[in-house]
Amino acid sequence: MTKQKVAVLGAGSWGTALGMALSDNGHDAVLWGNREEIVNEINQEHHNSHYLKEIQLPNGLSATLSLTEALAGADLVVLAVPTSAMREVAREVDAILSEPQIIVHVSKGIEPETNLRMSEVIAEEISPEKRKGIVVLSGPSHAEEVAERHPTTLCASCENDELAGIVQDVFINNNLRIYTNRDVVGAEIGGALKNIIALGAGISDGLGYGDNAKAALMTRGMAEITRLGVAVGADPQTFYGLTGIGDLIVTCTSVHSRNWRAGNKLGQGEKLDKVLADMGMVVEGVRTAKAVFGWAKELKIDMPISKAIYEVLFSDKDPAEAVDSLMGRKKKEEKESF
Amino acid sequence: MTKQKVAVLGAGSWGTALGMALSDNGHDAVLWGNREEIVNEINQEHHNSHYLKEIQLPNGLSATLSLTEALAGADLVVLAVPTSAMREVAREVDAILSEPQIIVHVSKGIEPETNLRMSEVIAEEISPEKRKGIVVLSGPSHAEEVAERHPTTLCASCENDELAGIVQDVFINNNLRIYTNRDVVGAEIGGALKNIIALGAGISDGLGYGDNAKAALMTRGMAEITRLGVAVGADPQTFYGLTGIGDLIVTCTSVHSRNWRAGNKLGQGEKLDKVLADMGMVVEGVRTAKAVFGWAKELKIDMPISKAIYEVLFSDKDPAEAVDSLMGRKKKEEKESF
Repeated sequence: MTKQKVAVLGAGSWGTALGMALSDNGHDAVLWGNREEIVNEINQEHHNSHYLKEIQLPNGLSATLSLTEALAGADLVVLAVPTSAMREVAREVDAILSEPQIIVHVSKGIEPETNLRMSEVIAEEISPEKRKGIVVLSGPSHAEEVAERHPTTLCASCENDELAGIVQDVFINNNLRIYTNRDVVGAEIGGALKNIIALGAGISDGLGYGDNAKAALMTRGMAEITRLGVAVGADPQTFYGLTGIGDLIVTCTSVHSRNWRAGNKLGQGEKLDKVLADMGMVVEGVRTAKAVFGWAKELKIDMPISKAIYEVLFSDKDPAEAVDSLMGRKKKEEKESF
Repeated sequence: MTKQKVAVLGAGSWGTALGMALSDNGHDAVLWGNREEIVNEINQEHHNSHYLKEIQLPNGLSATLSLTEALAGADLVVLAVPTSAMREVAREVDAILSEPQIIVHVSKGIEPETNLRMSEVIAEEISPEKRKGIVVLSGPSHAEEVAERHPTTLCASCENDELAGIVQDVFINNNLRIYTNRDVVGAEIGGALKNIIALGAGISDGLGYGDNAKAALMTRGMAEITRLGVAVGADPQTFYGLTGIGDLIVTCTSVHSRNWRAGNKLGQGEKLDKVLADMGMVVEGVRTAKAVFGWAKELKIDMPISKAIYEVLFSDKDPAEAVDSLMGRKKKEEKESF
């Protein structure tokens, strides 16, 4: 495919790793960041040491503090900012863009109060005449491993096959295998809600409960994510794919995972405020747990695992009691209809 | 529930751990084993050190070398032998039983040549007048953790709800949460074929490919297991439950897993014969990989991951080349119809 100019908004670990892949593929990728020391380090030393430690960035990958400069002449805009910043950044993008662009987003979360998925937040802020469409790029992908060029699979989800295909073509290479899928709702729900379960997996591990307990938590957690997803229009099958169970697996079983690490500390008895302060990076599952607690109530969807994790996070529930209460529920059949 | 006499046939790690749970629940559990030193150690020292190291067995859990003695007066028979021994042991059980029993089996594999699931092998060998029904007990459950009384979930699968309910009642306690399900085919296919994918996950880890690659392998692996399962009559949903993805997760991500450990050594360049000799325990995935290779061919089902693993095991294919060939396949949509 011909060389594209791609604006990657967000110079965290994921934005930077994706920028590297774009640069590897011969595209002109520019990272936009709001921290001067990071932008300077990327441009001058080809490192992003806060987020990607020792990893050497390609010489062609540049960064800027100016959103206008990043967006100038872009063929593709990749939103890779924390979900709490998504609305504001999308609004700024709308103010700057003059022509319609393909908007890709790679951020996983649900907006509290509104219960909106990230593509819905973007659609509210970037007006229809400034976007060709919104594509969700998601899947089991620790940024660190993508930056190290380990084999990774992602899924480009969009109702419009042509746009999903363009995103597939831009990112695909020997290390990154990109699938396509039309189920945007499923991809976003799976990606966002799995972070809650990852907090739970970390709590279980922190309590020393073992691999059997964690696998059960993950399996039953995915069942309740699917329950909510289907209620809001997702295809149940999406949850058994890369953006669902695949992403859940990688987030729950890897020490790279921020959500798992935060849960692990909670399970060991640390308090949420201290855990978050010590991490120094965004833990998306905490915000999403809050959103989903209210959302499930509103939709009258039974989500016992997410509820228990919410209570550990925000109601000072004892982690051991929370996990035990899940094991002690009454005898039941496994199967349910979606 | 009233005290039951349960014959657990097989004094390996899983049979012993289940015997412990039965004993914890107040039942009269007898293990049958064919190695005198193990039987003696269980009876005299309340240990099974070859399979469960330091773990203290309940005083009430006894063992015998005599199948007749184990089966005498049993209300329930649990078959916990390696799949390669299943046919022979079932035949012996048939010769001894005089009244119909509930037969439970907990062994995961497919018989090469016949492509039969274990319940089908049992049904061929134990005549209908000697069994009330066959129940499959499966789920994410390392024996070591069950023996340590860590929280664990299992699924009792049987077309007959009443029998599944009895097995649920016999095993359920505060550490073991038992669900029921009617899909015997799905439970057995998931339990057996996941061992092949676990070998693959071990190979990927042995090659140093990282968590993203492993999660992708597991997700796409489950998709191809589902494909075969549905072709032979399973409910696709079963594969997203405890006996499917749950068991796959625990087998692919835990150092307790023999199949993962065997794969890990293969990924590091060791040869199959040496790996198996060093393990000293049955690695069920190797036998099942052989069975499934032929079965998939016969059914004309595309199973690229299982095929690649078969080739590493039996055709001396280079593990790195096998994994790379999976990543390099052509661009495609993720979704398929089951």
